[in-house]
Amino acid sequence: MALKANAIVGQSGGPTAAINATLSGIIRASADSENIEKLYGMKNGIEGLIDGKIVDISYLFGDEKSLYTLESTPAAALGSCRKKLPTCGENKEIYEKILGHLKSFNIRYLFYIGGNDSMDTVKKLSEYFEANNCDISVIGVPKTIDNDLCITDHAPGYGSAAKYVATAVYEISRDSAVYTVDAVTIIELMGRDAGWLACAAALPKYYTGVGADLVYLPEVPFSSARFISDVKNELLTHPNVVVAVSEGIKHENGSYVADSMASGTIDVFGHKYLGGASRNLEALVRRKIGCKVRSVELNLPQRCASHIASKTDIDESVLVGAYAVKLATKGNTGKMVTTTRKGGDVYEISLDSVDASRVAGCVRSVPPEFINVQKNGVTRACIDYISPLILGERKIEYKNGIPVHLTIK
Amino acid sequence: MALKANAIVGQSGGPTAAINATLSGIIRASADSENIEKLYGMKNGIEGLIDGKIVDISYLFGDEKSLYTLESTPAAALGSCRKKLPTCGENKEIYEKILGHLKSFNIRYLFYIGGNDSMDTVKKLSEYFEANNCDISVIGVPKTIDNDLCITDHAPGYGSAAKYVATAVYEISRDSAVYTVDAVTIIELMGRDAGWLACAAALPKYYTGVGADLVYLPEVPFSSARFISDVKNELLTHPNVVVAVSEGIKHENGSYVADSMASGTIDVFGHKYLGGASRNLEALVRRKIGCKVRSVELNLPQRCASHIASKTDIDESVLVGAYAVKLATKGNTGKMVTTTRKGGDVYEISLDSVDASRVAGCVRSVPPEFINVQKNGVTRACIDYISPLILGERKIEYKNGIPVHLTIK
Repeated sequence: MALKANAIVGQSGGPTAAINATLSGIIRASADSENIEKLYGMKNGIEGLIDGKIVDISYLFGDEKSLYTLESTPAAALGSCRKKLPTCGENKEIYEKILGHLKSFNIRYLFYIGGNDSMDTVKKLSEYFEANNCDISVIGVPKTIDNDLCITDHAPGYGSAAKYVATAVYEISRDSAVYTVDAVTIIELMGRDAGWLACAAALPKYYTGVGADLVYLPEVPFSSARFISDVKNELLTHPNVVVAVSEGIKHENGSYVADSMASGTIDVFGHKYLGGASRNLEALVRRKIGCKVRSVELNLPQRCASHIASKTDIDESVLVGAYAVKLATKGNTGKMVTTTRKGGDVYEISLDSVDASRVAGCVRSVPPEFINVQKNGVTRACIDYISPLILGERKIEYKNGIPVHLTIK
Repeated sequence: MALKANAIVGQSGGPTAAINATLSGIIRASADSENIEKLYGMKNGIEGLIDGKIVDISYLFGDEKSLYTLESTPAAALGSCRKKLPTCGENKEIYEKILGHLKSFNIRYLFYIGGNDSMDTVKKLSEYFEANNCDISVIGVPKTIDNDLCITDHAPGYGSAAKYVATAVYEISRDSAVYTVDAVTIIELMGRDAGWLACAAALPKYYTGVGADLVYLPEVPFSSARFISDVKNELLTHPNVVVAVSEGIKHENGSYVADSMASGTIDVFGHKYLGGASRNLEALVRRKIGCKVRSVELNLPQRCASHIASKTDIDESVLVGAYAVKLATKGNTGKMVTTTRKGGDVYEISLDSVDASRVAGCVRSVPPEFINVQKNGVTRACIDYISPLILGERKIEYKNGIPVHLTIK
C-alpha cells in the first residue's frame, strides 16, 4: 500500500444549492480513502490557493451531523472565485506558487468543483503538473445550476435549481390566478446561454394544469410579434397568462432582449451580465396588449434556495464528489466526473469521467427535440428528462424558524 | 336550538400563503356548527357575490386530507378581488343584489377574509343589513402579509411571509458571501406603508451572524447620504454587505425612493403601485461607492411560498377562521377577529374581536421602539415580537417533485 498523502479541494464559479453536497462527498470519501491522510480546503478557489490560503478541513471527517448540515448549506462553504488562470506561458510564477503551496502541504490530489470555466483551470493545472513530472492528480467536479456542461447527462446543482423554479412558478401561477381581469405575469429565469432552467418552468402546467403557459428559451430566436400573438392567443382561453423566459433570450438579429437594460459589464470570461428581459417584455405587453402585466425575476433564490433542494440532486452531488476521490486516487488527472443516464423505465445514473479539456468553455444547449414545434414551450421528452432530477425533499433542520447552515471556519 | 341556516365565505385583496388556511378553519368550524347547514363560497369575493357567482363548498366538510392540502395551498382558492364597495347611498342596487343572492341561498352568516380595505366591505355590509333588519351576521377575518392591520397583535399571513423573507435573506446572504471583492446586495421586500416584512430580514443576522446588515423601513425618512455612509461603514468591516429595504421607503421630502421607476398606476383604493426602490439604490451605490452591487426583489414568492409557510401562522390562521364562525353564530356582526399576545415567557395568543370600522383603512406602522437608534436596523424587542410567528414547518406533500395544492372547483 502506498503511503498516504494529502488532498485539497476548492470551489469556483457561481454558488449553487448543491456545491456543498459535492464538497461533503469529497470529505466523506477522503475520510474513507486509504490514500488520503488529510483534506485541505483552498479559500476562494484557485485565487486562495495562489495566495496560500489553505485550511485543514479534516476535522469534518466522520462528523455525520455537520456533513448532513453542510449538504443543506447553500453557496460555497469554502468561498469561491471567478479567477481565470493565465496559461503557463503567460505567467509561470503563478504555477510555481501553486506548486510550492501544494508541495509544502504534501498534496497529491486536487479537486476543483465548478462549471465549464473552472474546467479550464483543471485542464491547465493538470497539464502543468504532468509537464513538470509532479505526481498531483487534478480532478474537476461539475456543478452549475445552468446545466450547460457538455458530455455529462446533467450537472449537480441543476436539479435543485429546477425544483425551486418549478415550485416557485407553480406558486406564482396560483397567485396570479386569483383575479378575473386579463393579466400577464412574466417570470424571468437564469440561463445566459442555455434555457434549461426555463424548461423547468414547464413542469407544473404539465403535471397540474396550472403553471407557465408559454416558455421562451435562448435556443430559439425571439420574435416580439410572435410573442405578442402567443400571449393574445392564451388570453382568449383564460385571463391569467404566465410566461417563463430565460434571461438570455435574443432577438432574431442576435441582440439580447435584455439589452436595453443591461449594464454592459463583462466578466473575466467575457460573458455579459444580463438582467431585464422580463422587464422589457412587460413594457412590450403593456404597449401592445394593454392589459395588467408584471414581471418577476426569480433571481438569486434559484441558485441558493437550499431549503427546497432536490434530494435526488443532493444525493447525486455527494456521490459525484466521492467518485472524484476514487478517480484521483486511481491515478487519473485532468478529468471531470460525468453522469450518464442508464436506459430503462426507472431513472438511474452511472458515473464516469471525461477529459476536462473537452468540457472547458463548451456550452450544452437545450436540444431541438426538447422544444415544441411552436417554439414557445417544451416537449414531453424534455419533461421526462427533467422530472427525475427534481424528485425528493431532504429533511431540513430549522432553528429559530430559519434553516440551519454550516460555516467552515 | 335554532334551525340551521347557511353561511358564505369570500376572500379579498392580495393573496397570502395562509388565506386558505383561514378558509379551512371556517370550513372546519362550519361543519361542526349546530347553526350552519351548508357553506357556500363567493367566487372572487364581493365581486362574485354581486353577480351571484356562488359555489357550494360543503363537500369539503370532514374531508381532512383535502383540508390539510388546502391549508398548504397559496393564493385565494375561491379567487379574490380588489372591489371597493360603493356606499349604499351611491349605489343601493348593488346592496339589493347582494341581499337577493344571500336570501335565495338562505344565508345568515357571511365571512370575509381580507386586509384593511376588505374591512371596509365588512363594515358597509353589516351596516346595511342592520339598517334593513336583515338577520345576517358579517364577520371580517384578517389576512395580510404586510401585518399592517390595526388593533390585532399580528395578522394571519404575516408569519409565513416573514419566514420566507428571513430564510431567503439568509440564503442570499450566504450566496453573497462567497467572493472576496467588496459587494453590496440590496434586497427589496414588500411593504408599501409599513416595514414589517423588512423587519423580518433582520432575523438571520441576529440569530446566526449572517444576514442583512442594514434594514431600512418606510417608517423612517430615508436619507441617501446616511445610507451611503452606513454601507461604507459596513464595508470597512466585511466585504459582502447585505441591505434590506421596504419597497415603500420615502425620502425626507416624502417622495418614494422607488418613484423614478414607478409606473404611476393607482389601484382602486388609491394606492400607488411601487417597484424599484432597490434598483434605484443599486444605481446610487454604483455611482457613490463604485463597488460590485446588485438588487434583488423578492417579489411574489413573499406572499405565495406556501412550501415554507410558518406552521405557527397556518395553525393560527385555521383557529382565526374557526373563531369567526363562533362569533357569527353567537350573533355578532360588523366585527373582525383579532389576536392578542398573552404575557409571559411562552408565546401564546388569545382570540377576540373588534369593530371592523376601527380597522378599515387604518395602517399599523412598525412602532418606534422596534427601530434602532441609528434608524438602519431593528431592536431586540422587534426580534422578540417576530420570532415566535415564524416558528415551525408543516409537512408538505410533493408529487412529481412539486408541492401538492388543492383546487376548489
